[in-house]
Amino acid sequence: MDKTYKIAVLVGSLRKDSINRKVAHALAEVAPEGLKLGIVEIWQLPLYNEDFDANPPAEWTAFRDRIKAADAVLFVTPEYNRSVPGALKNALDVGSRPYGKSAWSGKPGAVISASPGAIGGFGSNHHLRQSLVFLNVPAMAQPEVYLGGADKLFDAGGTLINDGTRKFLTGVMQSYADWIRANMKG
Amino acid sequence: MDKTYKIAVLVGSLRKDSINRKVAHALAEVAPEGLKLGIVEIWQLPLYNEDFDANPPAEWTAFRDRIKAADAVLFVTPEYNRSVPGALKNALDVGSRPYGKSAWSGKPGAVISASPGAIGGFGSNHHLRQSLVFLNVPAMAQPEVYLGGADKLFDAGGTLINDGTRKFLTGVMQSYADWIRANMKG
Amino acid sequence: MDKTYKIAVLVGSLRKDSINRKVAHALAEVAPEGLKLGIVEIWQLPLYNEDFDANPPAEWTAFRDRIKAADAVLFVTPEYNRSVPGALKNALDVGSRPYGKSAWSGKPGAVISASPGAIGGFGSNHHLRQSLVFLNVPAMAQPEVYLGGADKLFDAGGTLINDGTRKFLTGVMQSYADWIRANMKG
Amino acid sequence: MDKTYKIAVLVGSLRKDSINRKVAHALAEVAPEGLKLGIVEIWQLPLYNEDFDANPPAEWTAFRDRIKAADAVLFVTPEYNRSVPGALKNALDVGSRPYGKSAWSGKPGAVISASPGAIGGFGSNHHLRQSLVFLNVPAMAQPEVYLGGADKLFDAGGTLINDGTRKFLTGVMQSYADWIRANMKG
Repeated sequence: MDKTYKIAVLVGSLRKDSINRKVAHALAEVAPEGLKLGIVEIWQLPLYNEDFDANPPAEWTAFRDRIKAADAVLFVTPEYNRSVPGALKNALDVGSRPYGKSAWSGKPGAVISASPGAIGGFGSNHHLRQSLVFLNVPAMAQPEVYLGGADKLFDAGGTLINDGTRKFLTGVMQSYADWIRANMKG
Repeated sequence: MDKTYKIAVLVGSLRKDSINRKVAHALAEVAPEGLKLGIVEIWQLPLYNEDFDANPPAEWTAFRDRIKAADAVLFVTPEYNRSVPGALKNALDVGSRPYGKSAWSGKPGAVISASPGAIGGFGSNHHLRQSLVFLNVPAMAQPEVYLGGADKLFDAGGTLINDGTRKFLTGVMQSYADWIRANMKG
Repeated sequence: MDKTYKIAVLVGSLRKDSINRKVAHALAEVAPEGLKLGIVEIWQLPLYNEDFDANPPAEWTAFRDRIKAADAVLFVTPEYNRSVPGALKNALDVGSRPYGKSAWSGKPGAVISASPGAIGGFGSNHHLRQSLVFLNVPAMAQPEVYLGGADKLFDAGGTLINDGTRKFLTGVMQSYADWIRANMKG
Repeated sequence: MDKTYKIAVLVGSLRKDSINRKVAHALAEVAPEGLKLGIVEIWQLPLYNEDFDANPPAEWTAFRDRIKAADAVLFVTPEYNRSVPGALKNALDVGSRPYGKSAWSGKPGAVISASPGAIGGFGSNHHLRQSLVFLNVPAMAQPEVYLGGADKLFDAGGTLINDGTRKFLTGVMQSYADWIRANMKG
């Protein structure tokens, strides 16, 4: 891979010790050369309200600019109430506007979900994918990633305990690199 | 209907001239005796973050109390990016917590979606329903309500132009009253 | 419960040793007095084709009659390719027609999914629920049932190995009995 | 485009005068040079039953071979009961098996839905996409195609009446050609 791709990573949970944030850090660690992952924060974004588009909050503008500056987008998210956390959906909404100026369009995407329960965020993962169709974010199909029992995956320092998981996630990121190369425009 | 039921109405769009807010007002107008609808605002809710549960923002507590005080919940929402607006999903998340103390549980629900386009918020409607399963909000099945071309339904004063729509929504609210009576606990 | 309710049970897998068929038998065993479960077979149904409605196959007519004769419907299904097995979806389609004569309408429903994997048929469970909204089958929200690792739940004779699972399913069927009583018409 | 790509087209409705079959023919007509569309029939497929995998029906084998021989797959489908028609889901299931020998894997896909109603098969379209994630069929995101009022799109001879629709579908097929080139393996 000659080029370096900038990957905007969005983490769906806002709490400090978020499992999904740890997953995001682990993904950055195992990513192949040529992918440069950086978390784009979403906690500071005021709820999307179309009335503000004429004079948008600075947080919206900065967020949109960061997404636009990325080559690709990677979502790492828990499931809240069988769907995407409101905070992450709000970030999608903010980035999609104003009308006709979506920051997301054309950026190759991947969706990774993680939760303490067995289901591994399946509901969140697929609801998010439905939005990505509209947002023109081609989302990698395989490998799917539903990390169940995810609170048990890390040691106190946030390092992956299990070699199997590390190997799996390494493969995921290699597939994602291929996906990005295939689906980058221009 | 002997009893009067308090219905918490949640509107998925935050803008001042929201079509869905107009729909909510129209629903209040056509509701049968015994249903008392009141909009519970969601724009002021900080994004859900589990770390705040120990010492929750006053807006969260007030919102949770208002939901708990209601007998039933009615959602009136647009579709943003093929799913539930982030602001409305955030309200669901805030109301569902802290763990074990969800404000939603057991309250009979209905989902109404409206949008200017032809699809009438179908994607939002059904994603919301998936969350309601988890939240133990039994959601009325029929009549389904997907109001397409909804920007054309009201005059400048916010009154329904069309008798057919008024009649349809009147029937919807009668069915919802039946649904509430059947599914109220205790 | 004074009345006895006839429950049509639809099993989503057609193979002889189907886990879901075992789950269906286990549910019949733990069901409270007043619920009489009987499996309605679906393997013999020709694929739905509207052209046949004028002169329907005998299998369709017999199936529709059996559903109409039931008070309620219970779905027990695996997940195939992240959704409802084609055979079960075909049974839904056959029962829903001809237009205006659906066999399903108004019958209280419940959805139980089981699979060998961890996810327990989540995708199948919720896709089925989306159809049930349209079919006017009010579907019980809680308890949700996603039986993961379900190939390990039974001994060679098809008996539930685990007391915890038996207790859980007993509670599910009690909740379903309440759901039926609340949502039966007339 | 140097190479000619063979596109297996699956039509979700089985009736003779199927709107979706007309859409499929229209798509073949407007497809750019280099895409060769051919409908692969699904009406003859026995319902998937894992027990038959040891000695599969000839119809299954022939179907699997036709999918394997294609470079890409195009789905053109109505919505039945807010989801994928059982017949089409059965075809997905048949093609996905036996375990480890899916015929679908890696073939670039697109989903087009059409219905007489306003919603244009949205529910079917997205349920199908959820299966395609599992089946490793990378599905084109944009343009989305939900053809509402689709019974009015054709004249008695099955020709598209409307130039706008023809132009739209021409663009869809050009985008799909790009999608195929980007996502073909090897």
